Amino acid sequence: MRFHTRKWVKPEDLNPNGTLFGGQLLAWIDEEAALYTAIQLENSKIVTKYISEINFMSSAKQGDIIEIGMDVVKFGGTSVTLKCEARNKMTRETILTVDNIIMVNLGKDGKPTAHGKTKIEFVKDRLK
Amino acid sequence: MRFHTRKWVKPEDLNPNGTLFGGQLLAWIDEEAALYTAIQLENSKIVTKYISEINFMSSAKQGDIIEIGMDVVKFGGTSVTLKCEARNKMTRETILTVDNIIMVNLGKDGKPTAHGKTKIEFVKDRLK
Amino acid sequence: MRFHTRKWVKPEDLNPNGTLFGGQLLAWIDEEAALYTAIQLENSKIVTKYISEINFMSSAKQGDIIEIGMDVVKFGGTSVTLKCEARNKMTRETILTVDNIIMVNLGKDGKPTAHGKTKIEFVKDRLK
Amino acid sequence: MRFHTRKWVKPEDLNPNGTLFGGQLLAWIDEEAALYTAIQLENSKIVTKYISEINFMSSAKQGDIIEIGMDVVKFGGTSVTLKCEARNKMTRETILTVDNIIMVNLGKDGKPTAHGKTKIEFVKDRLK
Amino acid sequence: MRFHTRKWVKPEDLNPNGTLFGGQLLAWIDEEAALYTAIQLENSKIVTKYISEINFMSSAKQGDIIEIGMDVVKFGGTSVTLKCEARNKMTRETILTVDNIIMVNLGKDGKPTAHGKTKIEFVKDRLK
Amino acid sequence: MRFHTRKWVKPEDLNPNGTLFGGQLLAWIDEEAALYTAIQLENSKIVTKYISEINFMSSAKQGDIIEIGMDVVKFGGTSVTLKCEARNKMTRETILTVDNIIMVNLGKDGKPTAHGKTKIEFVKDRLK
Repeated sequence: MRFHTRKWVKPEDLNPNGTLFGGQLLAWIDEEAALYTAIQLENSKIVTKYISEINFMSSAKQGDIIEIGMDVVKFGGTSVTLKCEARNKMTRETILTVDNIIMVNLGKDGKPTAHGKTKIEFVKDRLK
Repeated sequence: MRFHTRKWVKPEDLNPNGTLFGGQLLAWIDEEAALYTAIQLENSKIVTKYISEINFMSSAKQGDIIEIGMDVVKFGGTSVTLKCEARNKMTRETILTVDNIIMVNLGKDGKPTAHGKTKIEFVKDRLK
Repeated sequence: MRFHTRKWVKPEDLNPNGTLFGGQLLAWIDEEAALYTAIQLENSKIVTKYISEINFMSSAKQGDIIEIGMDVVKFGGTSVTLKCEARNKMTRETILTVDNIIMVNLGKDGKPTAHGKTKIEFVKDRLK
Repeated sequence: MRFHTRKWVKPEDLNPNGTLFGGQLLAWIDEEAALYTAIQLENSKIVTKYISEINFMSSAKQGDIIEIGMDVVKFGGTSVTLKCEARNKMTRETILTVDNIIMVNLGKDGKPTAHGKTKIEFVKDRLK
Repeated sequence: MRFHTRKWVKPEDLNPNGTLFGGQLLAWIDEEAALYTAIQLENSKIVTKYISEINFMSSAKQGDIIEIGMDVVKFGGTSVTLKCEARNKMTRETILTVDNIIMVNLGKDGKPTAHGKTKIEFVKDRLK
Repeated sequence: MRFHTRKWVKPEDLNPNGTLFGGQLLAWIDEEAALYTAIQLENSKIVTKYISEINFMSSAKQGDIIEIGMDVVKFGGTSVTLKCEARNKMTRETILTVDNIIMVNLGKDGKPTAHGKTKIEFVKDRLK
């Protein structure tokens, strides 16, 4: 799994317990899933369809650095299924994992459309 | 289920497809779950431990009004399990439901602590 | 008066005195007034025209939960006049009341338009 | 009246009618009133106590520049009363005026405290 | 140099060291440069092309008031070069200066266009 | 140069010309520089001291994905000098480069302190 986006936990990201708000982390993960999918499918019209259960294993406090990793589980016809891990950058302690995030590829009409992809591509390969 | 908090979908809440970002909705739901729990347990030191699978059934566009409902599934010793629905205020179309959100009650030391609650209370009853 | 939307006071909502910024509360109230009016008039093109004097009776600190109540004072031809109260959810202490907030109903041309409503409606009644 | 702070109306500042959200403008005004008072009283522990009625005379759209002016109406013992105008920078069209905003000076204990000021001071005079 | 816009340093503007985030200050400066240029050139379609080196001389902490000053260095054919200073409002201590910020005037086609201005104008003069 | 953090250009990141606000990009870069330095120096108390000239070579529009790369130019005694590039993820078009960003390592007393690092380290090496 490749870890790309990193987030610095700031005061506005905390719950009243003084730890990272779970919902803020989910918003970061959904945005990263959408970014990752847009890059893989070369289409920014993608939406989140399904997120499997989320188990918060540890938390984070102000000043911690979170990094979010994504990997492809499966390429469907009009969708792609991702898995995700969020962890603490310094300790590598896992905060949560999500086994399945299903992202759907939309056409110009806003309906699911075949994306034609079957494997992960790297931008460097596309530019050859 | 009682629907309390309402959100107006604004430009900054949209994904590149021009519909409500799933992650933004999850952040609203997690905040509402925390608020609901804090009020029930009379303790604001609560954290999200688990969220069951999330199936996005419909979406919303800019200017739509979303309302978020919460109900208690079960009172545990140190936790409370909620269920949640987010729907469009005008059409009552369901956007998503979550069957189980487990919120944990923390003590001053940040560790799970018994909350002593066994049923939903309304503030009006407490003030009698 | 029915209290719907609830807000959790966060670090970014505080003034340098460490209490809830009055302007932030006014922004929440104006948004709630607009939401409430949009639902009653079944039209999201509404604007705030007038707010009567505002007397801050108490404040709130980080971690407090604020709830905002709205009620209709009068249905005009192209407007609706609301009254509002913001209070602390747990103590029910009133933070402020506003006697008159006048919201104007606009047509597609952006000009005041008759809304045809004369009493409060509940969505459940509309769906019968 | 001196006009200091200027704001650029952005997408997140608009209501569903596509014009400047009244509540956003009130938040800007309250912040400017607090800033102005903090500078005059040389104390940042100040809170908003009262805002007189607000009449929205015109609006603004995305890309417009708003400037906010403040002036002192009266120096009280522990408070200062301001008046305010918000206008469009290019056309000088007035958006709203507020006749009285009462800001209270707090001591270290968070209670109203005499500020000892009786007239507007400019920083350049203090530095002489 | 005239100092217009003032900013109150809030929790969300701080770096993990508890002082004003440099990047936040740069965002405020770029916005002020764009506002200043839009007013001078009577065109809001302007973009930042170049910013000369930035030396952070001092910092600011939560609750401090920052004011940002702009002046024109040179009017080019399709651009304007500004200089900028950010300072602490109360102490007048300089936080940073920027010698050259080049803003480019765009036409409706999004391309650099002659703006026809050769000196600073004040709105009061335009309205004569 | 390694590119880590990716940003999706949203409505609130645009200037009135409808392209990415330069100041927003600078805020993202400064945050990434701080994150990168905190990870390398294993200390989150770091501040930005200097940023060399910034030349905006291209821009970005809503929905584009920006990625930000950092590399170390030099390890000083109490500082580290970085270089930075921001580019469009899909086209790899460069938006801007910065040759020198000097970040200073602070001790608990908030003063520059020797960090003892002389070369880039990867977390995987630290965990051996």
